[in-house]
Amino acid sequence: MKALRFENGHLRIANTLKPDAAGEALVRVRLSGICNTDLEIARGYAGFQGTLGHEFVGVVERAAEAPALEGRRVVGEINAGCGACAQCAAGDARHCPRRTVLGIVGRDGAHAEFLQLPSVNLLPVPDEVSDECAVFTEPLAAACGIIERVEITKETRVAVVGDGKLGLLCTQAINALTNAQVTLIGKHASKLDIARRQGIKTILLADLQKVRRGFDVVIEASGATGGYALALELIRPRGVIVLKSTFHGATEFNAARVVVDEISVVGSRCGRFAPALKLLERNAVDVKSLISEEYALADAVKAMERAAAPGVLKVLLRP
Amino acid sequence: MKALRFENGHLRIANTLKPDAAGEALVRVRLSGICNTDLEIARGYAGFQGTLGHEFVGVVERAAEAPALEGRRVVGEINAGCGACAQCAAGDARHCPRRTVLGIVGRDGAHAEFLQLPSVNLLPVPDEVSDECAVFTEPLAAACGIIERVEITKETRVAVVGDGKLGLLCTQAINALTNAQVTLIGKHASKLDIARRQGIKTILLADLQKVRRGFDVVIEASGATGGYALALELIRPRGVIVLKSTFHGATEFNAARVVVDEISVVGSRCGRFAPALKLLERNAVDVKSLISEEYALADAVKAMERAAAPGVLKVLLRP
Repeated sequence: MKALRFENGHLRIANTLKPDAAGEALVRVRLSGICNTDLEIARGYAGFQGTLGHEFVGVVERAAEAPALEGRRVVGEINAGCGACAQCAAGDARHCPRRTVLGIVGRDGAHAEFLQLPSVNLLPVPDEVSDECAVFTEPLAAACGIIERVEITKETRVAVVGDGKLGLLCTQAINALTNAQVTLIGKHASKLDIARRQGIKTILLADLQKVRRGFDVVIEASGATGGYALALELIRPRGVIVLKSTFHGATEFNAARVVVDEISVVGSRCGRFAPALKLLERNAVDVKSLISEEYALADAVKAMERAAAPGVLKVLLRP
Repeated sequence: MKALRFENGHLRIANTLKPDAAGEALVRVRLSGICNTDLEIARGYAGFQGTLGHEFVGVVERAAEAPALEGRRVVGEINAGCGACAQCAAGDARHCPRRTVLGIVGRDGAHAEFLQLPSVNLLPVPDEVSDECAVFTEPLAAACGIIERVEITKETRVAVVGDGKLGLLCTQAINALTNAQVTLIGKHASKLDIARRQGIKTILLADLQKVRRGFDVVIEASGATGGYALALELIRPRGVIVLKSTFHGATEFNAARVVVDEISVVGSRCGRFAPALKLLERNAVDVKSLISEEYALADAVKAMERAAAPGVLKVLLRP
C-alpha cells in the first residue's frame, strides 16, 4: 500500500506492507489531515521514523475483537496504552508512560491507505458528520481538552493568541463548550473572519491595545515564541496561561513575572474524542472553513510543503 | 535615623528623617532579616530606590487609627493595597495592582530604626515567639503560601529543589502544614541536616538518581536556572511545578515537555502571616538553625556582602 514515510531524514511516498493488525483493528483510511506536528516531525524534531499522520476518518475492514465495528465509519483516539499501568487502569491511555501514538511515537500513522489501532480506540462517526468534518475530530478534541485543564465559566475572560487552525479550533471549542467571553487575537483578517462569523470577538494584532493584564485565561496557540510573550502581557495576576502549541527553541521564561504575579502556565496536549464528535454532530463549530486544500495521497510530499506555506490552514490527503 | 538605602546604584547607611507615618502606624524595628530579594534589588534588578528590607519584628510606637496596637510587639504584612480595587475589596492587598510593598515597591523598608505600615498590616507576636523567630514570619508565610496555589494531600509526593533558606523554609512549612511525603534535594549536607533533624527525607544532589518523573509536586526554591531544569526532570506527567524563586536571566522554557506531559508551572510569591505565626508559636519549624550571623544596622553594607556569600543562610540586622 502507499504511505507517506519519514525515514533517515527523508520524506517520501513509499510502497509498504499493509498492516497485519494482529490483535488490533484494520482501518481503510478515507481522508487524513496534515497537522503542524507532522511538519515538525519532518523537520526532525521528534525523533519519529515511519508513516506520518494522526488525523483521519476511515472504515473498519477487520476488527476480530470487536466485530460490530466492521464496516463502520470511524475516527480513532491516537494514544494506545500498555493496558497495565495506573494510568491505563484509570482509563487514561493518553498519559501511559509506555504508550505508542499514531504517527508520532512507535506506531505507523494515518497518511496511508490503511492503518491499525486497538479497537477500543475507535469511535463510530454519526451519519450527520461528513468525512471532511470528521477528519477534524482529533484536533478539535485537543481543543476541547483545554477545559480538562482549566476552569472556564461564563464570567471568565478568555483570550486565544494565534489565528491558525489550532487557534481557530480552540476559540470555537471554548465558545461552544462554555459561555465564556472569548476573544481571538491574530494577524490575519481573513482568518479572524472565520471566528467572527460564529459571533466571536476578534482583535487584529496590529490593533491590540489597552488589554494588558486584562484576561483571566490566555490560550497560546500561535506556535511562536512571541505568542508566549504576548500571553504574559495579556494575563492578569493569578491568571492561567494554557500552552497548546509545542513551539521549539529557547524562550525567555520570565520566571520573575510568573512568580511575582502568581501566574499559572498549564500545558494541554490532547483531549477525549466524544465531546468533539458531539460538537461536530450538532454543527456547533465551523471546521469546513479551515480546509485550504485537498491532495491525493500520492502527492503527499507536495501537500506537506503546501501545508507549511504561510496563510495555509488545513491540508487534507485522500488515499 | 539610620537606614540602609539603595539609591542611584549605590548601597549605603544614611541618616534619614524618621517616617511621619501620617494615617499609618509607626514601628520601631527590633530586628530585620536580609532576603535574597534585597540582594537582587542591590544588583539593580527591581528598579527600587529607597530603604531596603521587608522582614522585621518591631514595637508599635504610634498607631492613631488602632491605638490598641501601641506598645505591642508586631510583625507586618508587606503589601499595602490601594483600598479601592476589587482585590482590596476581597481582602487581598497582595495582588492589588496599585500596591506598594515594604522595601520593594514605592515604600521605604525595614532595614532602619523605624518604618511605617498601615495598622491593618500589623499582627501582634505571641509572647512564646522570640524576636529571632518572629523575624522569619514573612519568609515563612511565603512558604506557607504554596498550599494556596497547589493542593497537597498526604498521598502527594513533594520534592523541594534547593537547600538555601527559602528551600529549607518551604520544606519545613509543607511538612508541618500537610501530611505529604516531602523530599528536600540540595547540594550541602550541612544544610540538608537542618531538615533531616525534623524527620524530613533529604537527598544530596550528587546522589540523585532513579527519581525521574517520580514527583507529583516539585517546588523550585534554588533560585538558579538549573533548578527549573531539574524540576522538569523530576515532575511526573500532569504534575505541578511551583516556582518560588525569582531567578533572572533567560531559561530554556522547554514548552514541548510542558505541553506533551501536560505539566503545570505555578508561580507563588507571598502568603498570609497568621498561619506562619501559628507554626512559630507551636514550634513546628526550626528557623533558628537558619540564622548564620547578626550585624548591627550600622554595619549593614558589610552584612549584605556577607549574605551574598556562598553557604551563608539568614543574616540579621539589629538597629
